Amino acid sequence: MSQAQLTAIDVALRGGQRERQTLAQQRAGFEQFAARPIENDVTVDEVRLGGVPALRLAPPRAAGAALLYLHGGGYVIGSARSGAGLAAALARRANAVAYSLDYRLAPEHPFPAAVEDGLAAYTGLLAAGHEAGEVVVAGDSAGGGLALALLLSARGVGLPQPAAVAVMSPWVDLTLTGESLRAKEADDAIFDAADVAGYAAQYLGDHDPVDPLASPVLADLDGLPPLLIQVGTNEVLLDDATRLAARAASAHVTVTLEVVARAPHVFQHFAGQLDEADLALDRAGRFLAGHLTAPGFSPDGP
Amino acid sequence: MSQAQLTAIDVALRGGQRERQTLAQQRAGFEQFAARPIENDVTVDEVRLGGVPALRLAPPRAAGAALLYLHGGGYVIGSARSGAGLAAALARRANAVAYSLDYRLAPEHPFPAAVEDGLAAYTGLLAAGHEAGEVVVAGDSAGGGLALALLLSARGVGLPQPAAVAVMSPWVDLTLTGESLRAKEADDAIFDAADVAGYAAQYLGDHDPVDPLASPVLADLDGLPPLLIQVGTNEVLLDDATRLAARAASAHVTVTLEVVARAPHVFQHFAGQLDEADLALDRAGRFLAGHLTAPGFSPDGP
Repeated sequence: MSQAQLTAIDVALRGGQRERQTLAQQRAGFEQFAARPIENDVTVDEVRLGGVPALRLAPPRAAGAALLYLHGGGYVIGSARSGAGLAAALARRANAVAYSLDYRLAPEHPFPAAVEDGLAAYTGLLAAGHEAGEVVVAGDSAGGGLALALLLSARGVGLPQPAAVAVMSPWVDLTLTGESLRAKEADDAIFDAADVAGYAAQYLGDHDPVDPLASPVLADLDGLPPLLIQVGTNEVLLDDATRLAARAASAHVTVTLEVVARAPHVFQHFAGQLDEADLALDRAGRFLAGHLTAPGFSPDGP
Repeated sequence: MSQAQLTAIDVALRGGQRERQTLAQQRAGFEQFAARPIENDVTVDEVRLGGVPALRLAPPRAAGAALLYLHGGGYVIGSARSGAGLAAALARRANAVAYSLDYRLAPEHPFPAAVEDGLAAYTGLLAAGHEAGEVVVAGDSAGGGLALALLLSARGVGLPQPAAVAVMSPWVDLTLTGESLRAKEADDAIFDAADVAGYAAQYLGDHDPVDPLASPVLADLDGLPPLLIQVGTNEVLLDDATRLAARAASAHVTVTLEVVARAPHVFQHFAGQLDEADLALDRAGRFLAGHLTAPGFSPDGP
């Protein structure tokens, strides 16, 4: 526990701009926060997967495995670029090539546009010759919910499941029923319940939030691959993570839930400043690597 | 996933005697099931901790750390000897000396006798010169609930918390409200809801099950040390584990929940026959070792 690091991050987060911003300001601010430089040894290319734009991020020891990464941002902000840091960090640890997806955002493109793009990208990876056992899926926040919606969509159309899925602070209940939405408001330096409700309204429009592709915590999760969930206790979305773990367990899914005391939403963004962030990424990378079966793949590199 | 191993164990468990047994027969049967030979390199001694009898189990590379182990058996069956296998397995992996406790059993000694014995033993370890940071606590099934009750008791009397606590298939809700009690009856080869209710009745007598020392899932878990919970999905007690994780997370406890698909109650008993059992014990040992701060202690041995 690095309480001094956690406190410094909490203070910095609370010092940020809290007044009402335009959508363009929110998007620009999030890019500035999340899109730190990608390490020089990662090869970056703009590609398309199933027609959807993505950043391909290849760390030096990448083997044949692929990581499909879904960035966070409430389905409203964020980009392939804002997700590239976490995607590359996981890919490096799993010796995989990451694809950080530029799925369409609300309110311009409401539900189910993001899910359609996720499924198209996954289908594209398989069509390009990847076996499902060579593919893992990951995401943070709304991207964590989208990762699960993608798996449910794939199941629905008869595609095989990927080898594993890892989600960080996943947002999986757009019906907004978690007790932590209110109980953790004072602890959460980033969101309150109204912020979350605002994202849900922009993504869903008048679509019913009980749709399992919008709220995967309400879905029957039978048949999903091994699932890793990481979350901090200083989050209004804490109960999304704990209820997802319980729901998946009830459906006989292999689940690991890792709850980090006093950590904020998607604390993995603070790798390099927060020991828990680096350790969590290490664990997530090992988890993904441990389930990959790419030809010639080795958790220790090619 | 070792589906063939899991299926073989499931078949063997369902082939066991299911008709009504006397208490003496239940106790003898459980000893036969759980009390396999202790490896030759483990030094075994009969000792007392705070006046409570215990088996001291010292693996060859044990450093200064101590593991207090609480066996399972519904507070009604089991013994220091039946818990010795799991205690020694964890102690070996954490390079600690294990103490498997012979706490008093119901119905002869109903609640709170077991909790009193657990607290006496923990107090005894500290009185014998162990720093709390050199002590970890673990248990399975009812012993997992007892481990948490012990920590709550210690908090109540102002004792410091141990370095960490690990529980396997913990029974933490004696009010019997988990949905899995019914939903998982067909999947559980060992217990049904009536079995669990029977143990609760024998342990509690007419004591209120909402007492947090009987049902730690109902307690405020604030201040507890890092908590590892392992459980299988073929358990009527599955929801005890998932709700414990959620409850601890809400109190800002660092929690890891590991759910193993299709594994039975306290599947770690099947180490050597089931890959998931050995892997789970490895993870639990690393978890405990990672939190120990014994003088001269090293996770790699002395």
